[in-house]
Amino acid sequence: MSTVRLLNDDELSPQAREVFADIRATRQSDVVNNFWRALAHDPVTLKRTWESVKAVMGPGALDPKVKEMIYIAVSVAHGCPYCIHSHTAGARAKGMTDAEYAELVAVIGMASETNRLVTALGVPIDAAFEVS
Amino acid sequence: MSTVRLLNDDELSPQAREVFADIRATRQSDVVNNFWRALAHDPVTLKRTWESVKAVMGPGALDPKVKEMIYIAVSVAHGCPYCIHSHTAGARAKGMTDAEYAELVAVIGMASETNRLVTALGVPIDAAFEVS
Amino acid sequence: MSTVRLLNDDELSPQAREVFADIRATRQSDVVNNFWRALAHDPVTLKRTWESVKAVMGPGALDPKVKEMIYIAVSVAHGCPYCIHSHTAGARAKGMTDAEYAELVAVIGMASETNRLVTALGVPIDAAFEVS
Amino acid sequence: MSTVRLLNDDELSPQAREVFADIRATRQSDVVNNFWRALAHDPVTLKRTWESVKAVMGPGALDPKVKEMIYIAVSVAHGCPYCIHSHTAGARAKGMTDAEYAELVAVIGMASETNRLVTALGVPIDAAFEVS
Amino acid sequence: MSTVRLLNDDELSPQAREVFADIRATRQSDVVNNFWRALAHDPVTLKRTWESVKAVMGPGALDPKVKEMIYIAVSVAHGCPYCIHSHTAGARAKGMTDAEYAELVAVIGMASETNRLVTALGVPIDAAFEVS
Amino acid sequence: MSTVRLLNDDELSPQAREVFADIRATRQSDVVNNFWRALAHDPVTLKRTWESVKAVMGPGALDPKVKEMIYIAVSVAHGCPYCIHSHTAGARAKGMTDAEYAELVAVIGMASETNRLVTALGVPIDAAFEVS
Repeated sequence: MSTVRLLNDDELSPQAREVFADIRATRQSDVVNNFWRALAHDPVTLKRTWESVKAVMGPGALDPKVKEMIYIAVSVAHGCPYCIHSHTAGARAKGMTDAEYAELVAVIGMASETNRLVTALGVPIDAAFEVS
Repeated sequence: MSTVRLLNDDELSPQAREVFADIRATRQSDVVNNFWRALAHDPVTLKRTWESVKAVMGPGALDPKVKEMIYIAVSVAHGCPYCIHSHTAGARAKGMTDAEYAELVAVIGMASETNRLVTALGVPIDAAFEVS
Repeated sequence: MSTVRLLNDDELSPQAREVFADIRATRQSDVVNNFWRALAHDPVTLKRTWESVKAVMGPGALDPKVKEMIYIAVSVAHGCPYCIHSHTAGARAKGMTDAEYAELVAVIGMASETNRLVTALGVPIDAAFEVS
Repeated sequence: MSTVRLLNDDELSPQAREVFADIRATRQSDVVNNFWRALAHDPVTLKRTWESVKAVMGPGALDPKVKEMIYIAVSVAHGCPYCIHSHTAGARAKGMTDAEYAELVAVIGMASETNRLVTALGVPIDAAFEVS
Repeated sequence: MSTVRLLNDDELSPQAREVFADIRATRQSDVVNNFWRALAHDPVTLKRTWESVKAVMGPGALDPKVKEMIYIAVSVAHGCPYCIHSHTAGARAKGMTDAEYAELVAVIGMASETNRLVTALGVPIDAAFEVS
Repeated sequence: MSTVRLLNDDELSPQAREVFADIRATRQSDVVNNFWRALAHDPVTLKRTWESVKAVMGPGALDPKVKEMIYIAVSVAHGCPYCIHSHTAGARAKGMTDAEYAELVAVIGMASETNRLVTALGVPIDAAFEVS
């Protein structure tokens, strides 16, 4: 089930090959997962996307594990099973415990419920929540 | 813009009054925001929702600030402006810095982009991401 | 806030005028709400949409009030405030009681929560739920 | 395809075991479907979710069959195949006929179309639809 | 995985048979894809949907290939793998090149990212974008 | 209604000032719309987003007007009124006619309807639509 063939290492263009090398170096792993193999048909988007992901998910003010959990939350709300599976694996690899995962799932469920209650009722934003 | 009138304190049923008292006691604030005033027409759902929110968002394995940030992520992906405003205010009240907020927003944007790239391409889940 | 001007009765093309006449006759009301006034720029889509709505929402196996409630549920999950407001008004006009409305909202919230729990966990479909 | 293993009856914690017993007693069936087996890793969320589902979906102002149909509508708009399959089976078990199912599907489709037409055109809410 | 059985040609009602004949004549192909075989249980919705699709996707101001690409964009944002696969095949059959497909996917990803950035930040609409 | 203040030109950091200058030069207009003024609090995301938008939406295999129409389609399905308004204005500025706009809106509506019909029925992907 895919709209493009996944490319193996022998089929990459020179530009895609460079991106794959950087993925392997950055992650210190030989595995390049299917997302990049599907995206490799378009080396320009491959390169732009990888560089953005590397910049956004790298060290910063937030714990990388927390970033993965936020990624999971967005992926669940967007209904992307691939993304949920890959970032759940990623969060676990970065130390997410079973207890943290259970709370993450509970918060996602709770937010989904109140999001839709608010939308159904058309609740107007409290003045106190406005910035300007 | 709402499908029900927001109830003020004088219009509450006895059961809704009890929930409002617990909201005020738990949050140590006299303010009860519009969401609860819209939900107060149905004291059963008001009570169940408040007790669930209190349990899920309370102390646990995850930092309460992180829980608010996950809540924001879900609310953005679901397109709920009220929820985004209230939980962004909540996260700030719990200590979210400008730098953390900027990274949260960047991760939400990044996840949204790759979620849709994955979905467009129909990428199959890597065997390594499967639990069983 | 709209991307096209709402047309008033004097600005309608002859084909749009006919559709408006049928809306008024079918609903036995002189009011033609904003949706149709925005759609009237394109008489072909106006006519096709009105005839589809009339056919789908008319008498059948399901109570028209129940159809309006299903419409609300979809509109909430899609985040369409206009649609939520118009069909909540429609359901009330067709007899939806406050108690029924409260249960509708509760079911929408509950479904939203379990939808996202299921998606987060990637639950496989039970064989018993498969038709073939 | 799941992010957690489905637990069988022998692997349940005592609290999860109690919830499963209540599911069986309430539904008068020995089957406990996969959703609960995935959720059983977190007995707190399992218990809270089951009690909420039992309360919301139980007898009330709306016909239980209608509640299942609303659940299907939300699940379709959220794109949750598991939920669609389980609640379609549930609605049929509660008496939904083929004719009712056909109308449900047609209303969901219709609502989806007009939801997006309204959103594309940015139609402003008619004053008549406002509650306050 | 489906909630209704796919009907084969021998199982069609007379009305469904007529629609299938028109699908084959219009597309000049003997293949009738699964969507129509699932919808054939309800000949009324089958007929209305087919006639709408035929009218909307037929010749007009926009290139039919562009219409297929817009269809893909909507289907990705709604998370419908079937629709993505069928309309990607359709766009290719109507001449979409690999370069055009790569740009389509990039635009979908980009729009998804900025959509959520805008939503997270609650950006107010510029007066210049308002029509009236 | 926003979660951050919109920055005016006098409040920009030097890096944000550079991005604004490039927006003005690229678009050959003095106007910098609200999206960039909200994003300007985070110059890193501002710069990355602007450069991605410039690259993705610039000249290529697809007509820039078509890219704007795809952007609108995604924005409608994601429910982002700001994005819909800004890209509808953008498409018109790039030559989208009223007839093209009417067809765009009709295709978006049609796709939304069949997306949800397919999802409700759980239609399996035809083998002919699979790439590998």
